Amino acid sequence: MKAKVYVTIKENVLDPQGNAVQGALHTMGFGEVGKVRIGKYLEVEIAGNDRAKAEAQLKEMCEKLLANTVVEDYRFELEG
Amino acid sequence: MKAKVYVTIKENVLDPQGNAVQGALHTMGFGEVGKVRIGKYLEVEIAGNDRAKAEAQLKEMCEKLLANTVVEDYRFELEG
Repeated sequence: MKAKVYVTIKENVLDPQGNAVQGALHTMGFGEVGKVRIGKYLEVEIAGNDRAKAEAQLKEMCEKLLANTVVEDYRFELEG
Repeated sequence: MKAKVYVTIKENVLDPQGNAVQGALHTMGFGEVGKVRIGKYLEVEIAGNDRAKAEAQLKEMCEKLLANTVVEDYRFELEG
């Protein structure tokens, strides 16, 4: 199975990297650009066919390693 | 309008960060985990209602700043 994991910075947490990209885009002439938020996108292959088990494992992986749940949110989609 | 931009490392390019995460997950006991690829996920707000213009601008932003097209692919979705 293949999982797509999205890790984003929580809404009320500052995103200096996003602000820097926003500033760069403005400097380049893209004045219409508003807020930019930058997160991570992971593709994870998981062996086996047990969907429920894979979902439980993904949740645990996100909580323990992939996301810092103090300042980040995560969500994932399982395919196949 | 809000755009979601996904920047991923091309299939034939090494992803040492992904390999490190894969190794860490194995060490943590998630032996079912196969290949891990890590990319970026951006949310960009764009003022205006001209969808075609926004798409053209997004393509230009990705080509010029958001993605390194030598080693990365990108795709985006426009909402609203």
